Parts: sequence; C-alpha cells; structure tokens
Amino acid sequence: MARVVVDVMLKPEILDPQGQAVQRALPRLGFDGISDVRQGKRFELEVDGPVDEAALARIHELAESFLANTVIEDFTVKVEEVAEAVK
Amino acid sequence: MARVVVDVMLKPEILDPQGQAVQRALPRLGFDGISDVRQGKRFELEVDGPVDEAALARIHELAESFLANTVIEDFTVKVEEVAEAVK
Repeated sequence: MARVVVDVMLKPEILDPQGQAVQRALPRLGFDGISDVRQGKRFELEVDGPVDEAALARIHELAESFLANTVIEDFTVKVEEVAEAVK
Repeated sequence: MARVVVDVMLKPEILDPQGQAVQRALPRLGFDGISDVRQGKRFELEVDGPVDEAALARIHELAESFLANTVIEDFTVKVEEVAEAVK
C-alpha cells in the first residue's frame, strides 16, 4: 500500500482571500518577512496495490475531475512513502 | 525569496469526515482501489530573505501557534524552490 498526495492550490491569477487573511494577520502576531501566503488543500490517498503508471494515470484523472476545479485551481500528484516522518 | 510549505493534516486518530466523504464517493464515480482519503490544508509562504535555521524556527513557531491546531492536527514544514514545476 502506498500513499499518493494530491495538492490543490488556487491558480496564481486567482485571488485567495483565505491566504490574504493569514498574511495580513502575521505582522500583528509578530511574524514579519513573509510577503505572501496562499492556502490550498492537500489530499492523502491510500492506494491498494502497486502505484504504477496506470494507477497514477487514474489518480490524475480523479484529481482533475473530482478533487480540483481546474477552472480556478492547479493540482500536483506525488507518490509518498507510507512510513512518512511526521514532525 | 524562497517558498516554504506548511502542510497541516488531522492527526491519524482524529475522525476526518471530509476525507471520508471523498473516499465513499470514489467507487460511485468509478475509482476503485483507494482505501482511505484524508483531507488537510497546505499553506505556501513566500519568505523574504534567506531561509536559514532562524527563519525556519520562526515559521515552525508560526505554524504551531497559528496555522495548525496542535490538539487535533499535525504539521510539517518544508522548503521548496520558487521555480516550482506546476503540473
């Protein structure tokens, strides 16, 4: 079993009010030097069986049709180890 | 300028209704072989200046105190290239 991560972010040209709210709050909270914040979604999919070309193609299709709204969002698909280090 | 990514996910022992809703919808949509889905948040921070130990420590503190609710969420901090490949 492997873990595949799909990251979905608003396209750069789309306004991101959530990210802006975070970015504007930072100086008030004592954190300077961060010029921009964008907020998006992260999906962790546990895939049964091997993650081969065909499986990745299916997940790409799934992300495109279902997890992301490709009119306003970009997405990336990455394979990750199951024994992931969590900080 | 560098990009630092903070991923915030619910802890494994916390129920994730959003992820479950996605996971249950997949077979209906024709996608089999995915045994679990977890949904979380991804923050992309554009940092002015070098991302050294001190900057990362500050971002870690920021994520802990502000971006994640550490009672129910885990987070990871990663440095990413600015010239990121977007699929």
